[in-house]
Parts: sequence; C-alpha cells; structure tokens
Amino acid sequence: MTADLSCTDIPAKIGFGSDNHSGVHPEIMTAIAAASRGHAPSYGTDEISARVAKLFEREFGPGTQAFFVFNGTAANVLALDACVKPFQAVLCSEHSHIHVDECGAPERWIGAKLLPVPAPDGKVRVSDLRTRLIRRGDQHYSQAAVVSIAQPTELGTVYSLDELRAIAAFTKEQRLLFHIDGARLVNAAEYLGCSLRELTRDVGVDVLSFGGTKNGLLFGEAVVFFREDLAQDFKYRRKQAMQLPSKTRFVAAQFEAWLGTDLWLRTARHANSMARRLAAGLQSRSSIQLTQLTQANGVFVRLPKSWIAKLRARAFFYVWNELDSHSTDGRLECRLMTTFDTTPAAIDDFLATIDELSQSDPQNQSTCDRRSLDECKS
Amino acid sequence: MTADLSCTDIPAKIGFGSDNHSGVHPEIMTAIAAASRGHAPSYGTDEISARVAKLFEREFGPGTQAFFVFNGTAANVLALDACVKPFQAVLCSEHSHIHVDECGAPERWIGAKLLPVPAPDGKVRVSDLRTRLIRRGDQHYSQAAVVSIAQPTELGTVYSLDELRAIAAFTKEQRLLFHIDGARLVNAAEYLGCSLRELTRDVGVDVLSFGGTKNGLLFGEAVVFFREDLAQDFKYRRKQAMQLPSKTRFVAAQFEAWLGTDLWLRTARHANSMARRLAAGLQSRSSIQLTQLTQANGVFVRLPKSWIAKLRARAFFYVWNELDSHSTDGRLECRLMTTFDTTPAAIDDFLATIDELSQSDPQNQSTCDRRSLDECKS
Amino acid sequence: MTADLSCTDIPAKIGFGSDNHSGVHPEIMTAIAAASRGHAPSYGTDEISARVAKLFEREFGPGTQAFFVFNGTAANVLALDACVKPFQAVLCSEHSHIHVDECGAPERWIGAKLLPVPAPDGKVRVSDLRTRLIRRGDQHYSQAAVVSIAQPTELGTVYSLDELRAIAAFTKEQRLLFHIDGARLVNAAEYLGCSLRELTRDVGVDVLSFGGTKNGLLFGEAVVFFREDLAQDFKYRRKQAMQLPSKTRFVAAQFEAWLGTDLWLRTARHANSMARRLAAGLQSRSSIQLTQLTQANGVFVRLPKSWIAKLRARAFFYVWNELDSHSTDGRLECRLMTTFDTTPAAIDDFLATIDELSQSDPQNQSTCDRRSLDECKS
Amino acid sequence: MTADLSCTDIPAKIGFGSDNHSGVHPEIMTAIAAASRGHAPSYGTDEISARVAKLFEREFGPGTQAFFVFNGTAANVLALDACVKPFQAVLCSEHSHIHVDECGAPERWIGAKLLPVPAPDGKVRVSDLRTRLIRRGDQHYSQAAVVSIAQPTELGTVYSLDELRAIAAFTKEQRLLFHIDGARLVNAAEYLGCSLRELTRDVGVDVLSFGGTKNGLLFGEAVVFFREDLAQDFKYRRKQAMQLPSKTRFVAAQFEAWLGTDLWLRTARHANSMARRLAAGLQSRSSIQLTQLTQANGVFVRLPKSWIAKLRARAFFYVWNELDSHSTDGRLECRLMTTFDTTPAAIDDFLATIDELSQSDPQNQSTCDRRSLDECKS
Repeated sequence: MTADLSCTDIPAKIGFGSDNHSGVHPEIMTAIAAASRGHAPSYGTDEISARVAKLFEREFGPGTQAFFVFNGTAANVLALDACVKPFQAVLCSEHSHIHVDECGAPERWIGAKLLPVPAPDGKVRVSDLRTRLIRRGDQHYSQAAVVSIAQPTELGTVYSLDELRAIAAFTKEQRLLFHIDGARLVNAAEYLGCSLRELTRDVGVDVLSFGGTKNGLLFGEAVVFFREDLAQDFKYRRKQAMQLPSKTRFVAAQFEAWLGTDLWLRTARHANSMARRLAAGLQSRSSIQLTQLTQANGVFVRLPKSWIAKLRARAFFYVWNELDSHSTDGRLECRLMTTFDTTPAAIDDFLATIDELSQSDPQNQSTCDRRSLDECKS
Repeated sequence: MTADLSCTDIPAKIGFGSDNHSGVHPEIMTAIAAASRGHAPSYGTDEISARVAKLFEREFGPGTQAFFVFNGTAANVLALDACVKPFQAVLCSEHSHIHVDECGAPERWIGAKLLPVPAPDGKVRVSDLRTRLIRRGDQHYSQAAVVSIAQPTELGTVYSLDELRAIAAFTKEQRLLFHIDGARLVNAAEYLGCSLRELTRDVGVDVLSFGGTKNGLLFGEAVVFFREDLAQDFKYRRKQAMQLPSKTRFVAAQFEAWLGTDLWLRTARHANSMARRLAAGLQSRSSIQLTQLTQANGVFVRLPKSWIAKLRARAFFYVWNELDSHSTDGRLECRLMTTFDTTPAAIDDFLATIDELSQSDPQNQSTCDRRSLDECKS
Repeated sequence: MTADLSCTDIPAKIGFGSDNHSGVHPEIMTAIAAASRGHAPSYGTDEISARVAKLFEREFGPGTQAFFVFNGTAANVLALDACVKPFQAVLCSEHSHIHVDECGAPERWIGAKLLPVPAPDGKVRVSDLRTRLIRRGDQHYSQAAVVSIAQPTELGTVYSLDELRAIAAFTKEQRLLFHIDGARLVNAAEYLGCSLRELTRDVGVDVLSFGGTKNGLLFGEAVVFFREDLAQDFKYRRKQAMQLPSKTRFVAAQFEAWLGTDLWLRTARHANSMARRLAAGLQSRSSIQLTQLTQANGVFVRLPKSWIAKLRARAFFYVWNELDSHSTDGRLECRLMTTFDTTPAAIDDFLATIDELSQSDPQNQSTCDRRSLDECKS
Repeated sequence: MTADLSCTDIPAKIGFGSDNHSGVHPEIMTAIAAASRGHAPSYGTDEISARVAKLFEREFGPGTQAFFVFNGTAANVLALDACVKPFQAVLCSEHSHIHVDECGAPERWIGAKLLPVPAPDGKVRVSDLRTRLIRRGDQHYSQAAVVSIAQPTELGTVYSLDELRAIAAFTKEQRLLFHIDGARLVNAAEYLGCSLRELTRDVGVDVLSFGGTKNGLLFGEAVVFFREDLAQDFKYRRKQAMQLPSKTRFVAAQFEAWLGTDLWLRTARHANSMARRLAAGLQSRSSIQLTQLTQANGVFVRLPKSWIAKLRARAFFYVWNELDSHSTDGRLECRLMTTFDTTPAAIDDFLATIDELSQSDPQNQSTCDRRSLDECKS
C-alpha cells in the first residue's frame, strides 16, 4: 500500500517527500545550457546522443543499447513491452510501482497481466515467484514471461548481488526474462560498492529501466537492453508509445554529465549517507521504530500520528500506509527520502523537532512496541 | 507525403531542418534555472504550475484547463483520446502529422480510426469533410466524432479566422468536436495578428494541442480544454498514457516565461519574418518556384535535385516529397523551416549559394515550368 | 486456483467435467432447425431477434436491453467494457473467471485493472470490497468503478438475495456499478426459487452476462443492461470487439426456446437436483469430504489422489486445485459439474466406483481429517 | 464505399441481400445434430476437432494449422494479429471489409494501421502496393508488414492464379506476409476450377481467413496458417481475443461435413451458377448495365432509383453506393448476392419484375449510358 501522492498541500521547501521533489543538479543544468548551442538534428540523431550511446557501452558493456524516454512510467512500461506479449504476464512485487502507482499503464499499453507476489521487505523471493508459475501452456491463463523487480526496492532495501543472481538463475531456468526498475539504481550501486554493470548485466539482467529524474536530472530515463533481440524493434515501439523526445540532445547531455563523470556516484553517495544519518538519528531515539533497513536513500519509520502535521511543517514527507488507521499504538508508517541536496542541517533540524515533540508528548515514548529490524526482515 | 526524418547524416549547425532543431531560448533557460531552487512537490502540485493554470485562463478565457505533456505526439493523441471513443473516427488532413508521422500512435492508444481528406494546400475543406460523414448509426462503420486540423498546417499555410469559423460551425451542426494541433500555433497567431484566444476558443475550438518545443522550449506541450466535460478525466488519462511529468515545475516555468510575457509573440514574429525574407529571396530568383504560400515559418519550394546536396551542406533542410522521383523537370519539393534563432545572414548565405549554383547550372533556369501561387492555392 | 483446462486426454462420454461438455438440448436443436427456413436479414435485424428483445423485457422488466455475443468471455469483457474506462478498475473475487481464466482478455480489451479480493467460499464480502476503495481521486491509482461477481460463484455457492442487496447498496453508496457474471444464472435462480428479474434487476444489478452455452444451448450469451445509459453505445462496442454474429436469428431462436418457455427452469432444476444427489451420496461416505456447500450444479470434494485416475476413467472431472501437492492427507480438491443431461445412473455408478476404491484402499477412510461444511462456510 | 448494413426494414424472404441471409444447409444441420451426442471435452480437445485438424492438412497440405473462430471479423483481425506488430501496417484495398466494415476492429485489437490502395475492380495491383512501401526504417511511419486481399473481392471479382502469384512474389521480395480474406473462398475456387490448396498455399499465401458462415454453415470460420511460426502463439491470441469457442465440436462438425465432402464445391457451384444466370439475364436487358465482371456469387449492377423499392419488395438487395446521389442518369449501383439456396425461379421472377418496370418506365431504357465491362476492368 502506498501513500496518496495526489495531495496538494505540500510546502515547497527542502524536505523528505521524494527525490523527485529536488531540482536539477547544477552540473546537469550546466550541461543542458552547454548543449543549447546552434542547431542539432532531432529524434536521436545528434552528436551528443551518439557519444552517449558509446558511453552506455563503456559503462554496461559492448552491445548495450540505450533508448531515452521521458519518465519512469514509460521506462518501465516500454521495457516490459519489449519483453512480453499481450497474452503473457509480468511477475512483480505486490508493492511494485508498476502494480500500484501507474494507473494501469502496463495493462493498457501492453495488454498483459501483472501477477504480484508478497514482498514484506520489498524484495521478491524465488520461492514465491515459483508458486506463480502455474498452468504453463494453458491457453486460459496469462503465461508468465518476465520477472520485474525494483533495485533499490520501493521500501528502500537493496538486493544483494547473490540475491540478484538467484533471481537471474531462476529466470534462465524457466525461460523468463529479467527486468530491473532502476529508477534509483545508482543508490543501490553505491550501497553495494559495485559498478552499474556488475549490478545488472553481469548478474544476468536482460533489460533495465535506468532512472535519471530522481537523481538530479531535469527529466529523462533510459531503457537499457543487454540483449540485441529485445532492442530490435524498440525505436518503433518508443515512437508509437509517444515517448520519442524531439530535442534529444538535451536528454543525452544530461546523461553525459551524470553517467560520463562520477556525478552519479557522488550524488548517490551523498543521498545514501544522508539517509544513514537520518536513520541513525531516528534509531537512537527510543520512541522511534524503523520498519525497514535503510540501505539506499529511503528511511521507513513509524511515527505517532499526532506528530505528523508538525513534522511535515518542518520538512514534508509522505505517510506510506494511510490505511493503517486501526494501529493500536497510534502510529503510522512514514517514508523519508533523501536526495543529492539534502543537508545535514535539515536532518538535524528534523531530529530536533522530534525531540521537542517527544518531550511535550511523553506517553508516545513508552507505549511504543518496537519491532526490531531483524524481525522486520524475516 | 512527408520526408524520412530518420536520416542520420545531418550536420549540426544552424539550418532550415525543423524548428525542433533549434535549442532552448535563453529566456526559457533562465526560467528553468530559476525554477530549480529548493524542493517542490511533483506531479503538478507545485506553485509555478498553479500560477500557470491561472495564466492559461487569462490567455484563453475563464474555465480553460491546461495539462502538460512531454511532446507533440502525446499532446495530439491525448487531446483526441478525450474526444473520441474507440469505435469512433477522427477526420483529418491526408498530410496531417497524426496520420503520417506518428507510427500509428493514435490508432494504438485510442483504438479509433483516422479518416483522411484531401488537402492540397494543407487545409481541410468543409465540403470534403462532409463527404466523410457517411453511414452514421451503422454499427459496421467507425463513427466520425471529431475534426482535427493543424494550424498552421503541415504545409506552412494558415487558416483564416473565417475558415476556422466555418469548420467550427460544421462541427457544431454535425455534433462533432473540433481539435487543433497547434504545435506552431503562435506562428499562426502572429501571422493573423490575433490573440491565441481569438484563434481557438473564440472561433469554436473545443480542445487544443499547444506546442512549446518548436518555439524555443526545451520540451513541453499543453493539452488545453475549452470544455469542462472533456477535461474531467484527463488527469487519469494522462497518467495512464505515461505522460505525467514528475518535476512539473520545470515545464510550468517554461510556459510562464513564454506565454506569460510577450516572448511567444517575439519569437513567432522573428521566425515568421525570416520565412518571409527567405520566401521573397527565393521567389525573386527566376529559376525557383514556391509550392505553397509562406504564411507562417515554413517555406515550400521545388529545387533542382542536383543542387540539394550542396545546399544542404550550407544549411540542412528536408526534401519534403522524396517520392516525386519521376518529376520531369528534375526537381524535388523541399521544406525550409525558420525559427527563433534563424539569422538574416544565414538566409542571405543560402540565397547566395543558390545564385552560385544557378550560374554554374544555367539550364535549370529556363526549364522551370513555374506554377503560380494562385494556381497552387486553388 | 483453477484447473488446467487445456488437458487433452479427456474421454468423450457423459461425465462431470463441465456443463459445457454437454451437447445441445433437443428442444434447442429443434428451434435452430426451425429458424433455418428461407432468408433472414443479418446482424440482429431479423424477426426472431425482434421477438426475443421483447422477451427479455418481459422476463427482466421494461427497458431491459439485451445484446447477443458468442461466448462467456465476451459477455463478461464487453459488459465490463460498458462500465469502466481504461484508467479504472474492476473489483472481483480472487477466484473469478475474469481474473484467472481469460488469458488477460479484460486487461487487453478494456485496458483496465482487476483488483481481486479474497473469497474462500467464492463469494465476495462488502467488508473486503471496502478495503479496496483506497486512493480515490489519486491519479496514480486505477480507480474502482464496478463490482463484478459470479452468481452462482465459481465454487458452486449461491449468493442469497440479501447478500446481493448488500453488495448493490454498497455499490450505490460508493457510486460503483454492479455486474453479475451469470454464465449459470438459471441454476442460482432455481436454487433460490426466484425469478431471473428478482435475482438481478430487482436487487440492484446494473448489467448482467447471461449465459446460455452452459445450459444446453449450442452457443450464445447475452449482455443484458438494466440501465439505458450503459447500453447506448453497445452496438458499436460489440461490433468492434468482433462479437456481432451475422446469422443472429440462430442465437435468438435458441434464447426464445429456452428463456421463452420453462426450459431454462427445467434444465436448471434437473442439473441442480443431480448435483444434490451426487453431493448427498458423497457426503454419506465417511471417507469423503465436501469442501463447499452444493447450492447449484457443482460439487467440490477432496478425493484421494490414488483414486482420481480410476474415477476419471468412469466419468471425467477436473482436479480443481492441482497445486495442493503438499496436502498431508494425499487428497486433492476436485470439481464435479452436473448438467441438463446428467443421469441418476451415472451418479450411482460413480458412487459405486468410490465404494469399490474405498474397500480396496481402506486407509483412506480413517486418515481423513474431515472439515465440516459449516466450518468451510465461515 | 459500401452500403449501410444496419437498415432494419428488410423483408425476411429469399433474396439477394447477402449470403449470410441464407440459413443453414441441411447437411450441415444434420452434422450438428449428429455431433450432439453425449459429452465431449471443450475448447478444441474433442475428437471431431482432432479429425478436422487432419482434414485441413489433407486439403491444404502437411503442416497446415487451422483454428476456429466465431465470425469473419475475428478471422481477419486475428489472422492479421499473427502477422503484424502494433507499429506496423497492413496494405489492403480501399474497398476491403477490414477497412470499411469492421468499425475499426483491426486498429483497436492490433493497434496497427491500415494503408488502403485503389482497387476499381476490387483487386489490388502490385504497382499500387509498391507505391505504399515508403519510409521503410523510418521510426515515424507505420511499417508495412502484410498484404491482405479478399478472394473473391468485395466487388465479386476473382484474382487469377497468376495475379495471386504476382502478389506473392512481391510480398516475398519485400519481406511482407500475404493474407487472404477468404470469407467466400470456395466461390473463387469453383470459378477458377482449382483446389483450395492451389488457390492459397501453392501460390504463396501465408495465412488464410477461411469462411464458412456465408456458405451454409450456422456460424464458424477458420484461421488457417501455412507457416508454423505464425501459428505458434495463436491459441493464446485467440483466447485473449474472446474467440475460443467452448463447444468446439459443433464448429468442427460443420467443417467436417462441408470441407470433408464435396459439399463446399456443390454449394459454391450452385451459388456461382445462379449469379451467372442473374448476370446474363440482366445483361440481356438493354436498359441494364453491370458494373463488375460476375466471377463469383455477386452481381453488381446500376439500376434506376425509381425501380429499387419495387424490386426490393420482390427480393431484398443492397444499394452498394448510397452516396452516388449526383448520378446524372438517376441510377444507383446495387449488389445482388446469390447463395446455396438461390432458386432459378427467384431469378426469373426478379428479371420479370425488371421487365415490368422497364415497360412502365420506358425512358430509363434509352438514357442509359452503358459502360462496357472491359472498360470497367481497366
């Protein structure tokens, strides 16, 4: 269950709402401005796009093919469109963005079915995926064709390389394809200390949605194919899906500045370290319970309902599970995201506000039935 | 018939290829940078988006509702998606972008049929539209539901206000809706000397695709509704169509800088005047024939095949009708587009190159069977 | 979880496989032959179709509009297509045919999402439906628009009139529509002793898929609208969905013979009584446990795995839950359907075979951990 | 342009309206009744279906795979669905049923575009097809992938085997697929005196829509694949398209009685000979002009408007071109179809009525500006 993102009373200052609440990283802005000199051919035929095509091969390995699209919805839907036929199905987490936050975009565009599996910590398990492989060959049943996971997950956790390899082995064994929704992939790579290639192609991923918007870009995502056959028709699929940018050089220039330097790593490192600082600070308050491990740039925490309005007035964040209304302890699960421009001061201010609330509302300290992190991982 | 836009040997300098070959207008770039301060809520809930919503009402009249999308393909397809049901049809010009340049996007997304009518000068005529209103009520036949025109047309011509009123009267009489593809609407408004509202809502248009990308924006178009009922579900339709930008403030900021000042008019005026300069220069060469009236920022001209490579080396442009290969006079129709940053010097250089070619290739002067503009309009 | 219906080793004799394994009722066949005299206009404009239109009004009330389609898949998908927009969602049982047995037909045709709720006895509960009404107005989330139930359910149980009224009240309260998949509606009406109108329109149903194929017709279903606005465009929707029969008189003639006489009631009564006979016989064997109440023409029963091949050789039936392989008692849930032509002798033969197996395999008698029917209903 | 088929004032007697106005051939009815004995597995797993699968191989050659669907719309749309991807296009005649009589079903189901070419006598010409092969590789343009023709054409004419071979050679040369809409294929085979295999597979056709409904069947068409790769996924495609019949044995039994004997040839021969008799009779009246060659079971003729109501009262037929209202000679083109049960007496009666009208309306004899058949073929 995810929060209602359509709420409109959100203050426009630095907060923990989402990494897409942040602006454009200055180095990205510089690259955009630099690209705006003279004329350039459109629809992907410009020089910067040609350079970035090579850059993707450098970062992800020879033969890698990357196609820009406008946003994350499109990156995921079109990546999957290349993998499944309409009578097939996508195996994914019950929390996956494609399942609960796209207003049915995958179903409408592809015509296929999503088959969700449980994922208490955001990660799908091979044992659960296996239970969905039923009725293969039965014409009445949508045939599983691809496993789609998010890395990091929607709950801020990160699959280890071994966990990824296990899923990849399962997909190979079962003749499925393997897709990663990498809207925040750089945050996972930074956490694991591995390259983007090691995290994707090398573990056996077939196609990647590679996100820039949540990492300091103005807009722009890439659908990255590690198999030539999947990429073959993609230029037509993208165009028909209304996702071919005309002034492509401006998307390419952003990726060049971000992926072609260490900017992607610097920004991810900063966001992740800010999340750790926030998590550590929260965890050290006895009244607070984290609900997920903080492995990337998201912190999941249960907070007293009575505190939420006051905390949001300092720094906006989303209540993750609005429906947890019968919580006996008067708390709600909240999601706090950090970004490339989160400041230590903002975090300290947030923690100080919690301390103030805690002192003025002492009973929320003791009633807390704290769930340990180990427990929550099981 | 339009040119193959996928060609890749296009030199990256100022040319006449397309208004989407130009970069970002400096005032637009400034606005983008200014918008990138601090955090802002996403998905259209930011303050700039709120201001621009009012701006659209100011420019187009009370009750106008505008929704940003990423590109022109989406603006047209989603505007039409709000107007027609899958079993209905769209009446449009045989040259219309939605019919020949979208790789079937309208058919796939909407499920509906396009019914093209002839348009020798790019404009559809009510008498031709009327002939397509057949078999109404017949369940076997896609039922006409909307007339979609481009203003200016794909051939650089501009409907007069009276011509628009005639189409609007026809749509009202026949219970059809009226859509304008306004990828370059500002160029038409400048030519006609009227306001954007006078050109659309006031003549009876129901929904407008309002283009920014071809007029100095980095990216961004708006679907503008003049009828509340058509806009009612649009936020869901846009999201499901993968066209909801997350960092919406950056689209809004561009529209604010462009539509909220006289920038739209200044850039359109410049592009139009450059097109007139180019057209006048070409027309004064006896060897050259224009094929369409130059009313906005596009010049259509027949040029000797043997000149094209040399001219393109100076300034890129598209051969409009590649298939006109049996032309007995060895000429091909070409399209030359001007933009906000076209310079008089570039035009003069182009004309000088023509003069050089003309002198070294004199027989192309006399064999020309020049078609008059009046004739081409009939 | 439902059985794999694609299995091909099914013996072609009278069995308990499905009510669509039976042939054409003789009275239906007579009506088809009688209709085949001379020429008749096609596509629903014949005289028999006109008579049957009135017949539907007589049976279901004035203003009822019925449209023939070819099969049950189409009846459900097109009924829902008239109720939901692509960005909306259908609330249904996790066992519903539309969710698990249509190879994604609803998703592909409508573009909408299915939101399943638990239904241990096949029936959805208002309390569960209510939990799915989240994020209303949130553009990122498919908006619930219709509740679709099967009556009888896929598990052979029947909603009472009060249960139907409760769902209808919920849909009215929440501005949802109410659809019934009535592939076997006549069996429910016979069980409840009410008219078809009392069972549908009178309790507040908006649209009905009314099935004939499973009740002795050669083929043919009707989509029945109790609201004029939903029916308005349906003729176009049906045609575009490839479901307009040309020789419509032959579908109409079947419905006339079946719905226009007491044939529908007689066949339903026979099938239901045969199911009761079978259920009673099974229940009286101490080694056998029914898993659902037998309220219509389906009997759900757990049988020892070792018996299944031998029983199927006498009369084919489906294992309902193939995946129940870790069952500790060595049993599998099976579905036995009765039809208009099931004979008492066939049932008695089947029970005798069970007795034989039971005697030669005595340990299957005592290990049975029988679940009571009351328990299974809770 | 085709007639409005939704008209409702059609008398229910033997006429010339359409071959789907006729009923069920007695031998077909007998086969249906014979198939209705005992139970049979559903969804294509019955014994008759197995026999008919072999029958298709016998008639069309080894490896042929046939799949039943309900009607002609589905046969064409699903055959094409197996041939084209959504970003591709279908080349077809401007008169083709898929283009003008399916309410947009191909566009909605497949998502692809139809590119019509002129066909004055119903037949597409390779030279015209070739002109549509533009912009190949251009991502903005729907890529031609299949040529779809009707044999016989919608105008009653029949492609010769040489004409078919020429189209097949063109499709092979251009890497396109070749589809035949054979709703009345048997009538073409009878006219040409060749086998069904010679007419399809042997000339290079890849996939066939093979029609039964218009030839004495109650309902039922087959999608027939001559290439294994195209058939591979078809069972899923058909199911998701709502076209999998449950009681398949009844479709199979009809095909067995029709295709497995000489019934298909006898009925086609009768219908064709009746069309020739009608055409010859009309042609011998000096006041009458045929507009197409009569090669199968359709006669196209221009008749005085003032006669039409009186003639229709004797035997219904469609005005083919309702829009020919500015005809200076007061005539309209009409279509007269013959079927397996057309009688010589009905034809003679129709011709006698024409003679009566001709005598009472003598000026319609002389004003006729008769177009020769040769002229109409050019």
